[in-house]
Amino acid sequence: MSGGGGAAASALSSPWRSLLHRALEANAHLKHSTFFQLATVGRGGRPANRTVVFRGFQAQCDKIQINTDARNNKIGEIRNCPFGEICWYFADTWEQFRISGSIDVIDSSNPEPAMLQLRERAWFGSSVKSRLQYIGPCPGVPVPDDDLVENSHLDPSAGPVDAFCLLVLDPEKVDYLSLKSNQRLMFTRSQKGDGSNDWRAEKINP
Amino acid sequence: MSGGGGAAASALSSPWRSLLHRALEANAHLKHSTFFQLATVGRGGRPANRTVVFRGFQAQCDKIQINTDARNNKIGEIRNCPFGEICWYFADTWEQFRISGSIDVIDSSNPEPAMLQLRERAWFGSSVKSRLQYIGPCPGVPVPDDDLVENSHLDPSAGPVDAFCLLVLDPEKVDYLSLKSNQRLMFTRSQKGDGSNDWRAEKINP
Repeated sequence: MSGGGGAAASALSSPWRSLLHRALEANAHLKHSTFFQLATVGRGGRPANRTVVFRGFQAQCDKIQINTDARNNKIGEIRNCPFGEICWYFADTWEQFRISGSIDVIDSSNPEPAMLQLRERAWFGSSVKSRLQYIGPCPGVPVPDDDLVENSHLDPSAGPVDAFCLLVLDPEKVDYLSLKSNQRLMFTRSQKGDGSNDWRAEKINP
Repeated sequence: MSGGGGAAASALSSPWRSLLHRALEANAHLKHSTFFQLATVGRGGRPANRTVVFRGFQAQCDKIQINTDARNNKIGEIRNCPFGEICWYFADTWEQFRISGSIDVIDSSNPEPAMLQLRERAWFGSSVKSRLQYIGPCPGVPVPDDDLVENSHLDPSAGPVDAFCLLVLDPEKVDYLSLKSNQRLMFTRSQKGDGSNDWRAEKINP
């Protein structure tokens, strides 16, 4: 189960990635197959949980990308406790992936050019329609009485607006369960001397 | 949005219950419409998230029932931080309910006869097949090398085994989102002088 040969090769051979890839393909006909639930720790140390959309892996590694609105509670909560657990249930194949790890918040104030470039790529990677929500009214606050809805326009070539934020979850543990075969596998990451990832897989009771 | 007339009437008129009832009916043809993701706070204050099955409301109130295995990490985690957030996504109608509240753990050691009765009712309310998992091998521990699987037998009239545990989540806040109509409603509970619940609903930006 060793990755071998640096981060790139290690990511490609992460043993749970092939299971996830297979599940994504087998459930691709379901619109919600790319939706999962992201749990974080919120206000007062209480759990928070919401449906978000899988925006792919970062190139050459296992990091999972999620777009979100910087005006959300989520951001402050994650800065306070930078961990998350994804629960991803595939309805057609009866498979569950619980993916836990640390979360990086990449917003417009990020000091690293490489991170800002990732954020820009995520912005242009999403549809113009989905970009529009980031110039809409602030999420989670009461709707004004007059129900004023502005007609929003967005230049498709314009870069990310301030509200657009990229979350990146770096998996440390993946708990895979198949309800059809009643099999459960626990994948645990460790770091090798050269900084690349090593994944250990263990069959556990469902 | 006031409940009026004691706990029973209050529960029946909880305004989010009718939305949830409608969603459950509209998605009833999907096997997974009664599955939701329960987030809790786990080891080291990190979030934990897993798919569980909705086992109905407690009679005369809004409390949500979930069956679980007492041999799970979940139980210790919940005793340590007795709060949860359910994220319930209905795939056909594009509706999400985020339901947060405190969680009661009702296991065989519960000192209250009424609670033990609830647990017993939950046990007999689940299929004999699903009861079998509670006499199977301890969940989450490695599968023995010899892969020994005992043939389990269960007397259908026998009461709950020790591993069977009932979780009861008492909703305090319900965040409803319809992706089709792009509407979001926040329901917040308060307690009236007579101890019954009062729910306030507010339209907020999605």
